Parts: sequence; structure tokens; C-alpha cells
Amino acid sequence: MPAFPADGGDKPLAVSMGDPAGIGPDIALLSWARRNELSCPLFFVAGDAAAFLDRAKLLPASTRLEVQSIQEPEEAGEVFANALPVLPLTSSCAAVSAGKPDSANAGVIIESIEKAVALTISGRSSAVVTSPIAKFVLLQKGFAHAGHTEFLAELACRHNHSGVFPVMLMASKVLVAVPVTVHIPFREVPAKLTKARLTRTAKITNEGLRRYFGVERPRLAVCGLNPHAGENGELGREEIEIISPAVEELRSEGIAATGPFPADTLFHKEARDHYDAVLAMYHDQALIPFKTLSFEDGVNVTLGLPFIRTSPDHGTAFPLAGTGRANPASFLAALNLASGMGKTASHALSRD
Amino acid sequence: MPAFPADGGDKPLAVSMGDPAGIGPDIALLSWARRNELSCPLFFVAGDAAAFLDRAKLLPASTRLEVQSIQEPEEAGEVFANALPVLPLTSSCAAVSAGKPDSANAGVIIESIEKAVALTISGRSSAVVTSPIAKFVLLQKGFAHAGHTEFLAELACRHNHSGVFPVMLMASKVLVAVPVTVHIPFREVPAKLTKARLTRTAKITNEGLRRYFGVERPRLAVCGLNPHAGENGELGREEIEIISPAVEELRSEGIAATGPFPADTLFHKEARDHYDAVLAMYHDQALIPFKTLSFEDGVNVTLGLPFIRTSPDHGTAFPLAGTGRANPASFLAALNLASGMGKTASHALSRD
Repeated sequence: MPAFPADGGDKPLAVSMGDPAGIGPDIALLSWARRNELSCPLFFVAGDAAAFLDRAKLLPASTRLEVQSIQEPEEAGEVFANALPVLPLTSSCAAVSAGKPDSANAGVIIESIEKAVALTISGRSSAVVTSPIAKFVLLQKGFAHAGHTEFLAELACRHNHSGVFPVMLMASKVLVAVPVTVHIPFREVPAKLTKARLTRTAKITNEGLRRYFGVERPRLAVCGLNPHAGENGELGREEIEIISPAVEELRSEGIAATGPFPADTLFHKEARDHYDAVLAMYHDQALIPFKTLSFEDGVNVTLGLPFIRTSPDHGTAFPLAGTGRANPASFLAALNLASGMGKTASHALSRD
Repeated sequence: MPAFPADGGDKPLAVSMGDPAGIGPDIALLSWARRNELSCPLFFVAGDAAAFLDRAKLLPASTRLEVQSIQEPEEAGEVFANALPVLPLTSSCAAVSAGKPDSANAGVIIESIEKAVALTISGRSSAVVTSPIAKFVLLQKGFAHAGHTEFLAELACRHNHSGVFPVMLMASKVLVAVPVTVHIPFREVPAKLTKARLTRTAKITNEGLRRYFGVERPRLAVCGLNPHAGENGELGREEIEIISPAVEELRSEGIAATGPFPADTLFHKEARDHYDAVLAMYHDQALIPFKTLSFEDGVNVTLGLPFIRTSPDHGTAFPLAGTGRANPASFLAALNLASGMGKTASHALSRD
């Protein structure tokens, strides 16, 4: 059996528990079970070991599923070969019924995220990988954030990081796509799509690709907002008034941005060869092509935070919890990408 | 050499010439050249035979490219084995320079479309396949239509057909997608997306799939407008106020419509197995996934006209004209689909 961490001395990834009634525990356990067969990087879960043990008993795994509590992140390396390491929180889960979310667990779900972030900011874990949560479960505990990303930005502020501007980057082997506006109604997109937001998002994307993905001079393809990228103003003026000026500003600062291009011409194989990331003007403009191409193994990355954060590209999938039918592919991809981003960043830093 | 038409007695397809400086002549000639190797249905071009002869001389084709004038559509079948049949118009092209559009040809370009439509409406050709035009070339001739589709709707009215409501349907082997709003600016979509427009588009799509595609009870998947289909109103209310009521009305009339679904969950392979066509709320919501999946061989179909009309899913591509590098795949697919739609419709009618 190989030693973990495979390449010696790496810090573990900190995985938040997510909603314990969802498939978060399933995919963590199933990924751990395949740690040898797949290249699964070292990780621990910040959570309730008992809840994971209970879930392990439900899952029809070919390998035996073992869970072991650890007291410090540094113990994860020793434990990982024999059991999924779980770092306890101050609170425990109320009785967990797979598939049945319970707001009694809102506190422990939130604490798990806080713990994973705190350990990563303090340098004891290399990155945060978040498991899926369901907002409606947390609402009753006063959780007022639109989602993980916004909560992580607040946590960064709590840890005295200012100027946090979270950028959602969707990554798979075939496409990197960044929506400039994200979880807002369609009709609000034109008002929210400003030159300032577009250039700031592009700069964070550019820096993120350089720092974490090892792309020396990232090529950023920028989508138009309107059909045919506005057809010289005939089908909308945002390309002329906002997007083109933003692209010009980025280019004047040495960033390899091009566009705006008609969005429907950017996502077939040949087109994708010409850029490293595409900047989309709104949620579905990024997510439709992304999920068309990478439905199972996409990873959601948050740039613009003072730590590395990835997450699987799916939700809690309550009906699948405990059934053994949850697919860990996206979670495994999130672990691998977080690990790779951490190593690239270390190398990049040591080159500075 | 097989006889044309291959299955005997079929009417030819009427192909409009398109802009003679674009790749229209190239793809018609290249498709004809491969008539035996590929299953290319019988067609003729309504246009200027001299312009096609000139283009044929420029093209480095492995087969010899022959062009022959015909006087009536009924002669196409005899000619097709030996030459591309071209039916002359009352006007001829001014000198054509490949790749250099000239508004002196606006009249003949428009007459070609009118002729193809007139012959098809009168039953002498089975369908209209339009070659690419460039609007700016036609503008100076007073062509005031947003594109082919709108002009074809007007021609239908001229031929005494009322109640024409053109619906753009994108078809390939892996996806059929229909945008409910089409060539309008992004910011105008919410105002134009009415329940009446959505249900009318859905009904024409439903009828078109039954009549021309042989789908007995078409399954129509309807996209939401907002991210995550509005997330119960948190990210927009069009799903609640417009789209869901439209889906309910359609279902109450026996149409197998479902949704609204988050648009980013509808286009991977597994999802596509669950519907026959997807109704998208705006241009890019249909065209992004369509061109991601089918960039080379997509076909643009217009439903809601009193005749069958298809078109390749690309433009005039002036720089490629006469170079031999134009890809006829989409044009061939448009010919084949038009031919198939005509046969399915005949069968459907003969069953009535």
C-alpha cells in the first residue's frame, strides 16, 4: 500500500462536511475507498465522525469503509491509508437520516466550513474543498448568504483579509469558463454588467490562471452579451459601450484578452483550442456550454479569496444519499484540482 | 451511375443562389460533385448558370464540376447525374468576384429566393433550401428584413397565406433546439417573452415535429429564463409568471411539454435522451448548446411557413469563396433534412 501523502510532506486538503443528509458523506467515503485505484490526494473532513460511520454502514462499497477521528490536521497523513480521517468540531450532528435534511444540523454544517477555512488560512491545510449544502436548511439558522461563495468571502473578511472579490471559475479538462455576473435574475444582467466588474473579474481570472494553473500568459476569450455579439450595435449596444472598452483596457495592461465574440461560436472543439478561459457575461452563458461538455466531472473554483477553494459541481442530491448511487467523479476532480492548484501555487511562489 | 432521383418521381429541392460572391456556389457545386459518394438528394439552383460555371473553374475539385441550365424544375432529374442543374432567373449576375460582395447583385439574389419560394408553393419543387446571404449587400436594394426568415414570411403573405408565424428550429443528429425569441437584444428578451409567444412557438414546434419529423407525440423540454430556472422566484419570476403557466396550458391541450428546467441541466447526453426538442427562451440559450454539439452539420429549419425551408447554419464566409476550403457539410445536411421532411410530410398526409 502506498504511503500518503503520495509525494511526501504535502499538507492535506480540508473538506467541509456539507449537509450530512445529502451525498457529501457518500462521495467523501467513496473517494477515500478508491484512494489507491485513483489518484486521490490526501484529505480530511472537518465534521462529525459518527455521522460518517453511520453513512459508511449504509453504502454497498466493494472496499471496507473505515472512519477515524483525528485531533490535528497533521495526523491525516498517517491515518489516510487505513481510514477516512475526520477532524471533530465543537458541535456534533443531531441524528442524521440520509436523504432527510434537518435544520437542527445547520450549526454544525456552518462550523465545518468555518473550520476548514480557518485551518487553511492558518496554513495547516492546503486548500478548502466544500461539500454540497442546501441553503434552505441553513436559512433558519440565520445564514443570509446567497451560497458558499458569498459565505467564504465573509469568512475571509473575518480573518482580516480586505478587498475580497470572489470569482466563480468552472474548470474541467476541456473548458474553463468564468461568469462575470452570477446568481442574479436574467433581467438584471445588463445593469450589473459594468466595465469595472468585467475588468476586475478578468484580472482575477488572469492572475488565478497564472498562479494556480501554471499558464504563463492566459488567453481570455470574452463573450458578447447579445446574439451575434450585437452585430455592430444592431442587436444591442453592450458590446460597443461596455465589453469592447473593457477588452481594450485589459489589452492595454498586457492581458491577452480578445473579443467580444458571438457566444455561440466559442465552444466547439476547434474554438476552445484558441483560449485558456472564456469570460461569459452571465450564469447560463458559462454554465450551459460547461455542463454540456462536462456534466460529471466539472469543478467549481472560487478565485479572489485568500485561499484555494474548489467544490464539486453538483448539489446535495438528497434522494441519492446512502444509496451508493452518488457519483464521486466531480468531488474527486475537485480534490485533484485543489491539490494541483496548491502545488502549482507553491512552485509559482518559489519561483518569485 | 444511379438514376436521380434515387427513389424515382420525387420532386427536386429548390436551392436559392445566395450571395454569388460568398460560398453558396462553392457548397452547391461541392455537394453536387459528391452526389454519388454521399446521399445527396436531387436539387437545382435558382440562379445564374454563368456565375456557377465561373466558380466551378476556381474550385480544385477531384471530380469535374459541370453546370447545365434547365428551363423547368422537372428537367432537374435528367440533368443531375451529369451536371448541376441551374434554373435561370429573369436577371443575371453582374460580374462576380469571389469573396467580394457587390450590391449590384442584390436584385438577382432576392429574385432567386422569390423564385425558389414560388416554385415550391406551386408544388413544382418539394422544399426551399436557402444559401447564405449578407444583409448589408441587400440593404441598398431596399431589403428591410432582419434576415431570410422574415423575408420568407413576407413572401408567404404575398402568396396569400395568412397567419404566418415563422419559428426557427435548429436541427442536428443530436439536438433539436427552438429559440422562442430570436434576433433581439438581450435586454429586450424579458419584455418579448410572453405566454402567448411561448405557447404559439411550442404548438408550431409540436406540429412541425409531428408532420415533418415523424414524431408521434413530441416531448418538448422548456428552459427557464433565469439561473437555476429562477430557484422558486429567488433569482427571477418569469418562470412563475410566464413559463410555468405556458407549460400548463400546453399540457392541458395534450402537448407533452415539461419544465421549466434549469437550462444548464438540459444538454448533456443523458438529458437529451429525455426530449425531442428543447424550447429555449432566447437566441444564445438555444444556439450555444447547439453549436457546441453540432458546429459543422447543423441545419436551420423554419417552421410556421406554408412550405418546407431549411438552410445551412453558417454565413456567406466571403474569404473562403472560390478557395475550395468551404465545408459543404451543413449545406448537405440542409438538403438531406429538407428532403426527409418532404417525404415524411407526404407520408403523413397520405395517412390522413
